[in-house]
Amino acid sequence: MTDFTTARPFAHEQVERWDAETDVAIVGFGAAGACAAIEAAEAGAAVILFEAASGSGGASALSGGEIYLGGGGGTDAQRAAGFEDSTQALETYLTMAGGPDADTAKIALYARESLAHYQWLKDQGVPYKGTFLPGKIIEPAEDDTLIWSGSEAAWPFSETATPAPRGHTIQFMGWGGGRKLMDIFEARVRALGVDVHCDARVLSLIADAGGRVTGLVVRIDGKPQFIRARRGVILATGGFCMNQEMLRRYAPQTMRLSNPIGENDNGSGIMMGMGVGGDAIHMDEFFTTCPWIMPESLVKGIFVNERGQRFINEDCYHGRVSRTMLDQPGERVYLLVDNAIFARPLDIARIEIAAVGESWEEVERELGLPGDTLAATVHIFNRYAAEGHDPLFNKAPEWLKVLGEAPFAALELNVATSFFSFFTLGGLNTRPSGEVLDRAGHIVPGLYAAGRATSGLPRWGHGYSSGLSLADCTFFGRMAGRSAAAEN
Amino acid sequence: MTDFTTARPFAHEQVERWDAETDVAIVGFGAAGACAAIEAAEAGAAVILFEAASGSGGASALSGGEIYLGGGGGTDAQRAAGFEDSTQALETYLTMAGGPDADTAKIALYARESLAHYQWLKDQGVPYKGTFLPGKIIEPAEDDTLIWSGSEAAWPFSETATPAPRGHTIQFMGWGGGRKLMDIFEARVRALGVDVHCDARVLSLIADAGGRVTGLVVRIDGKPQFIRARRGVILATGGFCMNQEMLRRYAPQTMRLSNPIGENDNGSGIMMGMGVGGDAIHMDEFFTTCPWIMPESLVKGIFVNERGQRFINEDCYHGRVSRTMLDQPGERVYLLVDNAIFARPLDIARIEIAAVGESWEEVERELGLPGDTLAATVHIFNRYAAEGHDPLFNKAPEWLKVLGEAPFAALELNVATSFFSFFTLGGLNTRPSGEVLDRAGHIVPGLYAAGRATSGLPRWGHGYSSGLSLADCTFFGRMAGRSAAAEN
Repeated sequence: MTDFTTARPFAHEQVERWDAETDVAIVGFGAAGACAAIEAAEAGAAVILFEAASGSGGASALSGGEIYLGGGGGTDAQRAAGFEDSTQALETYLTMAGGPDADTAKIALYARESLAHYQWLKDQGVPYKGTFLPGKIIEPAEDDTLIWSGSEAAWPFSETATPAPRGHTIQFMGWGGGRKLMDIFEARVRALGVDVHCDARVLSLIADAGGRVTGLVVRIDGKPQFIRARRGVILATGGFCMNQEMLRRYAPQTMRLSNPIGENDNGSGIMMGMGVGGDAIHMDEFFTTCPWIMPESLVKGIFVNERGQRFINEDCYHGRVSRTMLDQPGERVYLLVDNAIFARPLDIARIEIAAVGESWEEVERELGLPGDTLAATVHIFNRYAAEGHDPLFNKAPEWLKVLGEAPFAALELNVATSFFSFFTLGGLNTRPSGEVLDRAGHIVPGLYAAGRATSGLPRWGHGYSSGLSLADCTFFGRMAGRSAAAEN
Repeated sequence: MTDFTTARPFAHEQVERWDAETDVAIVGFGAAGACAAIEAAEAGAAVILFEAASGSGGASALSGGEIYLGGGGGTDAQRAAGFEDSTQALETYLTMAGGPDADTAKIALYARESLAHYQWLKDQGVPYKGTFLPGKIIEPAEDDTLIWSGSEAAWPFSETATPAPRGHTIQFMGWGGGRKLMDIFEARVRALGVDVHCDARVLSLIADAGGRVTGLVVRIDGKPQFIRARRGVILATGGFCMNQEMLRRYAPQTMRLSNPIGENDNGSGIMMGMGVGGDAIHMDEFFTTCPWIMPESLVKGIFVNERGQRFINEDCYHGRVSRTMLDQPGERVYLLVDNAIFARPLDIARIEIAAVGESWEEVERELGLPGDTLAATVHIFNRYAAEGHDPLFNKAPEWLKVLGEAPFAALELNVATSFFSFFTLGGLNTRPSGEVLDRAGHIVPGLYAAGRATSGLPRWGHGYSSGLSLADCTFFGRMAGRSAAAEN
């Protein structure tokens, strides 16, 4: 255990000497911290930013640089592709995606401001080619910048919220545009004169006897330094997917997963926030995915669990499908494909061929399943697929296909051995302004948070869609920066 | 929101006058608080106990007075019924029942001390007739005192932990022996000279600048009183099933359920414990059940979800089955029965007959399910049941029966309208001694907790078994009382 987990703030009254003073101190140089810094600095505040790693990036730099945007009649890219996205449709989708305790205040604000946020991103220098890539995409293979990134076109979302593609990726050749996005943010942060310190680990917050956060203690070159933040401290430290002890206590279902996304997501900010009375909510929630949808013909296959039962419409977001895989008994699920749609999955997914046969009965036997289980499931599926519908799981007709061309195969996705990446979704409870709330719903004075240190737009693993976390980090990072800068 | 949710402790240094002093102050007069009081008083400590309600009881008094006991060669009742229960089997079962983060330290201690705890209960005056009632029982209809109370004899538990019945109920005619159990505990508490105050709501803990809990503020007759606890404060305040706001933030899946067990389980102790740095863990976990297993012939039916799929071996604990019902899509599951096993469910369960037919295909149609879904599930089940096994779900042969005698029926259990009781399982992280741990794993000096204010033996809804919560409350209540009394 490192120091920070004691979680208790350092007493303001015991600070003998401030090593530095600023208006706003920001912890963490991922997208949330960067966007907070930009807004705070533009509002005229003196801003200091601490990052534990040797450079900017955080988990944001490991992403595809995709941001969930839309509404208001549609972005330029949406309109060019023929989608008139409405604010209501965006708000409805985000509410469904947010699960049983969706944050309706943040969602309403984000839906209303999404187009303006897109413009703000462009104003920072983020390039968008504006071209739409249809189909099932994880990240664009070239430099297109609009994709379907969630379950918009899939049941049950499509029944309630008019579908539109909303995954806006930074223009970048190939996967992994998140690093480029962070480079652009970093350039803006530095151009605005933010005082950036890397290799600077924040050890604790400083709070006065009245509970107000007044600064922080940071270790630089091995020495603790006391930083006074006159207007506020913003925690933008990410989630806790790299902290085994926190995962065990708060999100034990993730202990089955071995590919966390986020080098420094050790939960320190959540802990420090709780240490001054902040409330952490939905700590058990997490995003996970195995990239099984490429090549996209595989989406026409059907998933069955170890009992030979289907469990979801396979055309919804790959992360929603993957999260639901974890709800199934055992470690394995099988993607059933016929010769017409078979394709070799991505190497990184580590999906193996578990059985091949000339009939579904043969596949069933080869998998060691009892007779008339998997085969019965396929026969029922095929019967209705031939009629163009899927009455049990409501897979959209576009992805329905009779699995009838031998040979047949079962591709195994194994929670223990396939590539299931994950990150946590639980964190501090904040207002849309970024103000951290305590367990009574009152603000913790002087403290703000954004990104995966909070429970934000994405707070329900079964509803996650690509781009939601960066949408949350960038937009509510900005809100936190603006609010802190405005404090007196 | 009431006062306590601000969760901040009152500062010791600001206490102007102590209205009373004691060694050990206990909050809550359910089983955990009562057992803590008995041990602390017997150890020679001066003990004061506060209860917000007008009398003792808490959720414990609403229970069947059943305690999960065994190991060590078996209790008298187990041995008389022919079960040589081993400590290893008990420990293994509790570990499986505890889920992915089972508390192995508490489990090991409890398994080792279970027989001695049984003797202690008898020493307090709790009567046990010692008679075993076989079969599927929720609570004994008469005054027998040993039943199968969990999933011991069901897959997968039975494969790893040698099964034995371990539900020891207080001797009491009919259901609801929990009130009698509490009356016995209360008499002991009063006989030992514990200073009991009912209608006394604890508003906050008192902690000094070093973080040590030194007492509490309690409202009696409308006036706050400052109570000094020289050795320690024990939180035995129960869970948070009556606090809608906490349920929404920490256990949103329970928002579908409308029958909380626990009149005063408002989460106040968990909040106060967190307010002094205590860690609350597994807050999303909860127990739920719909009493569907009576008459027991119904257990020979099979459950299907709204897609006509089975989802569990129906012979495991009714609460495990019920918890798994909530994982299914939609609001309804159906218990399929034939004429041979049909029986009218308990009125309180609010289970309705959704469909009747001369064939399973007719039942399927009447329920509005697509053809060849529910009927296919039954035919596959029947095929294997005729051979005496259940290869998909491993229901034990004793409960397997071909569902072949018309007419057939589907009984509907509806999460929204049937009787699903529930209580929460998340709470403060404690050592087996009852010491409350902070987020760094260090103790919060002067603070103890027990029962549903903690995350204890029962901490995984899918593994709950009747008697686990009272086992945890009574035994670890004792440990907390003993530890607090021994503190100097």
